[in-house]
Amino acid sequence: MSEQQHQHVVIIGCGFGGLAVAKKLINSNCSVTIIDKSNHHLFQPLLYQVATADLSPSDIAWPIRNVFAQAKNIKVIQDEVTYIDKNRRQVKTINGQYQYDQLVVAVGAENTYFGHEEWQANAPGLKDLSDALMIRERILSAFEKAEQCEDLKLREAYMTFVVIGGGPTGVEMAGAIAEIAKSTLARDFRQIKTTEARIMLIEGGSNVLNGFDPKLCQYTESALRELGVELVFERFVENIKPNQVILKDQCVSANTIIWGAGVKSKVANLLDIKAEANGSVKVDPYLRLPDFTDVFIIGDAAWVEWKGNKTVPGIAPAAKQQGRYVGQLIRKPSNKPSPFKYNHSGNLATIGRHKAVVDLGKMKFKGWLAWYFWGFIHIYFLIGVRSATVVLLQWFWSYLTNKKPARIIIGKLFNKRD
Amino acid sequence: MSEQQHQHVVIIGCGFGGLAVAKKLINSNCSVTIIDKSNHHLFQPLLYQVATADLSPSDIAWPIRNVFAQAKNIKVIQDEVTYIDKNRRQVKTINGQYQYDQLVVAVGAENTYFGHEEWQANAPGLKDLSDALMIRERILSAFEKAEQCEDLKLREAYMTFVVIGGGPTGVEMAGAIAEIAKSTLARDFRQIKTTEARIMLIEGGSNVLNGFDPKLCQYTESALRELGVELVFERFVENIKPNQVILKDQCVSANTIIWGAGVKSKVANLLDIKAEANGSVKVDPYLRLPDFTDVFIIGDAAWVEWKGNKTVPGIAPAAKQQGRYVGQLIRKPSNKPSPFKYNHSGNLATIGRHKAVVDLGKMKFKGWLAWYFWGFIHIYFLIGVRSATVVLLQWFWSYLTNKKPARIIIGKLFNKRD
Repeated sequence: MSEQQHQHVVIIGCGFGGLAVAKKLINSNCSVTIIDKSNHHLFQPLLYQVATADLSPSDIAWPIRNVFAQAKNIKVIQDEVTYIDKNRRQVKTINGQYQYDQLVVAVGAENTYFGHEEWQANAPGLKDLSDALMIRERILSAFEKAEQCEDLKLREAYMTFVVIGGGPTGVEMAGAIAEIAKSTLARDFRQIKTTEARIMLIEGGSNVLNGFDPKLCQYTESALRELGVELVFERFVENIKPNQVILKDQCVSANTIIWGAGVKSKVANLLDIKAEANGSVKVDPYLRLPDFTDVFIIGDAAWVEWKGNKTVPGIAPAAKQQGRYVGQLIRKPSNKPSPFKYNHSGNLATIGRHKAVVDLGKMKFKGWLAWYFWGFIHIYFLIGVRSATVVLLQWFWSYLTNKKPARIIIGKLFNKRD
Repeated sequence: MSEQQHQHVVIIGCGFGGLAVAKKLINSNCSVTIIDKSNHHLFQPLLYQVATADLSPSDIAWPIRNVFAQAKNIKVIQDEVTYIDKNRRQVKTINGQYQYDQLVVAVGAENTYFGHEEWQANAPGLKDLSDALMIRERILSAFEKAEQCEDLKLREAYMTFVVIGGGPTGVEMAGAIAEIAKSTLARDFRQIKTTEARIMLIEGGSNVLNGFDPKLCQYTESALRELGVELVFERFVENIKPNQVILKDQCVSANTIIWGAGVKSKVANLLDIKAEANGSVKVDPYLRLPDFTDVFIIGDAAWVEWKGNKTVPGIAPAAKQQGRYVGQLIRKPSNKPSPFKYNHSGNLATIGRHKAVVDLGKMKFKGWLAWYFWGFIHIYFLIGVRSATVVLLQWFWSYLTNKKPARIIIGKLFNKRD
């Protein structure tokens, strides 16, 4: 296959990876079908800001079909893939099935509760917009309920927020909730003092932001403590009941429990093959499924060797690089393609206003400079000019006023829990 | 009672009326409790723009407690009132009860289905943010389903949108859906032609915008027809089944049915007294409940005599005027207060881009000038500078690009219907 013509390419998932593949195939010889269970591409790095009422869903999401409105060779289907038949080259979805010549699997990863999936209802994770809105409603409603609650013990539970997992998402969530309680809402209530809210971050390891430079980890921990976050290290969650987190040596009553302790891809199930520990699937140097060279796997779904026995991290830049590589390979097939090479640009995490850490390998910095750098990078990478402008304005305004503009409990959206 | 001190005022509902009362009582001698079932004040005139994906919920809603953060005499409770005991001066809510010295009932109105409340699930109305988001998801999902649907008859039902009721809300919704189909989404789909969508507006009377100048009604009708809206007059809905509207002489299959045919206040139930036809309660010239001069009723909940046997219309400016009047009366009680006098400034309705009607009594105009006037008035009255700025920018951008920025199907928000 030195020249490829009228191939039908199916892309499953339109996150950073899938989007990058499809963009490379705009106006190519291939006809492309994108299948995604939602109608939008999501800028996941800012999802926690929807959960913490800084941004609205439409600030960080774009209708996929609008991105490709002008690309007549690209079709978008909102549907969920249930099975991939590698031998018959078929993708089965809830509502139909699609034949492919080449397939790109970019399904990403979902929250995993390590075999305790029943914890999910009590401790939602943060993967899509409905998760973010649900968490937002829980956080805001907890303060509303506390304000009306006469029972002091119950009130304490309403005012307790537990975040499980000390990775970037956990740090961002804990820091943002602390800011909401200690600053944004400080003057809004009469019965309760929101500044007395208890925010706990529970991490199984001995530090937050595992994988970052130790000095940056230390800074993050002291910055979190300064914001009033209680750090609990080397504790694994033994059970999560409704409004209760049980650890080895304590039991915490909390109305709001947020899960950020692990993700897992369901790609191996879809393909009916063996998975790595995080649910991803090992690929060859060209990001193809060994033995099935018409199946590419990218992003969080792929286990891509990096620096010996490690895998490329599950972050947006990695998925994008893989997507661009595969898109190019499909667009211009070669008999001797060069293998995929991951270029790691660095790690970023934000803790709160004027507090962030940046680890670019050779360069490491923290504090307000890191925070501005983080903000700049994120706005820069938001696709779509409109949203970048609006988000910039929103942020600038939030920055000046220190208010959370999207502090709206919509209600009726979710089944009531209590 | 010539001097009032440390009275406890309870305000039920924080729409335009309740908000205006509370604002008048900032830093007064009274202690004030606002009870609202949601945590936000909603700028209802723009709610249809949330339903049609032009604006996000937080663009038109503000946390009530933030509005009164600095007013130490004002307390905000998010709760739902279940009963008002006029004799004991008690307001009962789901979670508690509140004693009052003076009460302001500003509960507004809800959709009414004229005894067919079972229609609601099939034909939601547009009263709060969750309604608006649900209608948005239905409209957007209908096109997604049509794109995947091979059955031509079913596809036609997905592509049919029925709006019931030819008042301002019905006209705005029908016009906005037509614009979405004919223009915003025109290039986004491959299997369907969104320009072929069928949009029906059903009205029991013989014209739209009843109460407006006949010339403006005529203009509105021709503008709607120009946008491709099918107008059906003098037909009452006999039944609404899932995805089906049944009229005397036809049965329309439609996946999206929107109700805008009538509203009713539940105030009379709460007070356990006789209601007028629209559910509201007749008040004395000082907007008080006859025989209970410590109970004020304002806004859509009140039947206020105007021009003989008519009532003041259920629009935002009327509720605001009543709220300011009552707030003033409570703040500075007088033995001889002047009765409330309604000052009608006019009627506005928008149909679509560059198409609106304005009826100011002496001055009537239509078309692009009316559209700009409508936009200016609405932005001007949005409280809160942030939102006005962001909304202005959003609108300006929408105007330039003719895109709907909030075209996001969030999913999982509502129970699936089909």
